[in-house]
Amino acid sequence: MKRIYMDHAGTTPVRKEVVEAMLPYFTEKFGNASTVYSYGREARKAVEEAREKVAALIGADPKEVYFTSGGTEADNWALRGIAYANKEKGNHIITTAIEHHAVLHTCEDLEKKGFKVTYLPVDKYGRVRVEDVINAINDKTILISIMHANNEIGTIEPIEEIGQVLKNLDRKIYFHTDAVQTVGKIPVDVNKLNVDLLSISSHKIYGPKGVGALYIKKGTKIQSFMTGGGQEFGKRAGTENVSGIVGFGKAAELIASELEEQQKKLSYLRDKLIKGIMENISDVILNGHPVDRLPHNVNLCFKYIEGESLLLNLDLKGICASSGSACTSGSLEPSHVLLAIGLPHEIAHGSLRLTLGRDNTEEEIDYVVDAIKEIVEKLRQMSPLYNQKK
Amino acid sequence: MKRIYMDHAGTTPVRKEVVEAMLPYFTEKFGNASTVYSYGREARKAVEEAREKVAALIGADPKEVYFTSGGTEADNWALRGIAYANKEKGNHIITTAIEHHAVLHTCEDLEKKGFKVTYLPVDKYGRVRVEDVINAINDKTILISIMHANNEIGTIEPIEEIGQVLKNLDRKIYFHTDAVQTVGKIPVDVNKLNVDLLSISSHKIYGPKGVGALYIKKGTKIQSFMTGGGQEFGKRAGTENVSGIVGFGKAAELIASELEEQQKKLSYLRDKLIKGIMENISDVILNGHPVDRLPHNVNLCFKYIEGESLLLNLDLKGICASSGSACTSGSLEPSHVLLAIGLPHEIAHGSLRLTLGRDNTEEEIDYVVDAIKEIVEKLRQMSPLYNQKK
Repeated sequence: MKRIYMDHAGTTPVRKEVVEAMLPYFTEKFGNASTVYSYGREARKAVEEAREKVAALIGADPKEVYFTSGGTEADNWALRGIAYANKEKGNHIITTAIEHHAVLHTCEDLEKKGFKVTYLPVDKYGRVRVEDVINAINDKTILISIMHANNEIGTIEPIEEIGQVLKNLDRKIYFHTDAVQTVGKIPVDVNKLNVDLLSISSHKIYGPKGVGALYIKKGTKIQSFMTGGGQEFGKRAGTENVSGIVGFGKAAELIASELEEQQKKLSYLRDKLIKGIMENISDVILNGHPVDRLPHNVNLCFKYIEGESLLLNLDLKGICASSGSACTSGSLEPSHVLLAIGLPHEIAHGSLRLTLGRDNTEEEIDYVVDAIKEIVEKLRQMSPLYNQKK
Repeated sequence: MKRIYMDHAGTTPVRKEVVEAMLPYFTEKFGNASTVYSYGREARKAVEEAREKVAALIGADPKEVYFTSGGTEADNWALRGIAYANKEKGNHIITTAIEHHAVLHTCEDLEKKGFKVTYLPVDKYGRVRVEDVINAINDKTILISIMHANNEIGTIEPIEEIGQVLKNLDRKIYFHTDAVQTVGKIPVDVNKLNVDLLSISSHKIYGPKGVGALYIKKGTKIQSFMTGGGQEFGKRAGTENVSGIVGFGKAAELIASELEEQQKKLSYLRDKLIKGIMENISDVILNGHPVDRLPHNVNLCFKYIEGESLLLNLDLKGICASSGSACTSGSLEPSHVLLAIGLPHEIAHGSLRLTLGRDNTEEEIDYVVDAIKEIVEKLRQMSPLYNQKK
């Protein structure tokens, strides 16, 4: 059975060119990048070239890019690193109710350690209001962390506007954005966004898992998260994951070269998928912003059915999708994001996220629309709630 | 020019079988291990099989093995996680002066956050005295972290004896060992060692960089270091580095099957190398314990010369070695380990670490002895100190 993969917000396959770029660094060029002999020097060179490529993708200076083990580490570092380094200036952090758990659970942990956190609400599309951010600032505020786009419903947040306001304040409040879902999907420029810190993940852009980066603007006062050896300009200890970093760099280079074309293609497929489902199935809600959304994201709630049953039935037809975030699947709780946009529990339980990628085709869209229609009808026939409604 | 690699304590090449095991998880089996569909399930299965292999290598239950991004993260997690989770019981930590920087710098950071740390001295061979450990314990002690073997001089520490004493105390003090250098070199059994936490790194045992593990004994009270999604039994967030974990598992399986044979072979080559150098070159000191040392470790000080010059000259002859730890090379400070065993600054500066691996041969040993002899003679002829002595 052919498999149709539509969970690219969860992870992506590593591109062939990326694997090829990585391979020599496992075997013939396996040196430790922090050693002085020739093996080490070729590894060091490869790491620095990758840093340039990742920096170029987000408009940063290579010296502002620090490799991590992934997006989660980047988020943990940004929040904990800024909080502890600036705690004599204040202990207040502002974030939103719809952040990824890498931000939310880290904020909760910081609360246990004496910090105060404001969790801002969002509107029905999942957008935070700029004035809410500004109004939440007090004289103890040291950090604001708001995601660039939501990983479940795809809504793009007004980061640039918020960054502009913060830039004109009379005192420094650090601004972090989790851009794991936007980098490689829409143009991301750290200077245009006016952020001080930005998290990226490799495996969301057809690079390997286990590697990511944190952009840290020059002059930012931040503590190390991982302490030990002097790697990453003395800021992030641990032997460099050379092959992973090389793969990440290659993936960044490739995605940069096709960003515009992919954005166009994905938006077209996304709109076709949404239209196909909305026109063929009743009682469906599109979650997230209708326009300001990621080009590859479709998130829907099908009333009267369970998201999990829908997913398993799709899997039987070879279709890989998600009920929300991969990081919380297996959990029986409905998505915190869907609750935050005001959906009641019973509807939030019927959610389906389809996230498209560079290999998806129009034919696949047609097949998926038909499959969902068939499954939803079957499941609803078995649903007491649906039959009650009729 | 043929390259002779003798820096296996720094990093190791990834074995061909390991790369082959990893490859499918980049491309056809690229799923996110935390998703419910078939792609995800095959990734999950691979991760759990790798966990069994790593657990088997250290005599642990697979449920006690938590994958991390490497040894540095494992050390950071062990120390910070135990410190914060048990701070109402006490704020005192005991460690040694010769730990890896991943432990030492983390202890220094914990001191800034209100913890008290005792840094125990070591004897001239780099061994900590069991009675010193016991005497350092006070009623605020919550954690003891002592490495299983030193990464620079190869001395094996009396972990089993310390573990035995701690086990018989009337209250629980957590015991962590950084076993990054011993796992895969000498038998390591968490139950025999009586440790609660043990750090491992994949790239020291012919696995990929960017992955490691922390053994956490059942019932241990520890906080998460990386917070976010529910991965690793809810204790270590972040999308699983599936290919890296699979490679680590394969490397663990392979090294377990040949441990005894390799230990014998490496000890033989090590002794031949030490003998060859000591008999052919004057004014050389063997650092570390003469008997209780890692089977692959040779660490020497050549009086009247700089370690860095020696290294660069060896590199010109295709020989890769180290002056100490890869994590601090580039630093002009002499090794904290060599200073701790009582060497004066000027001698500590002339150190050379040669660490052998499974591909090294007797012929290479002969070649390296000759090369070192030639280089040391040349450098000493240029050394004012050496000429003064004559």
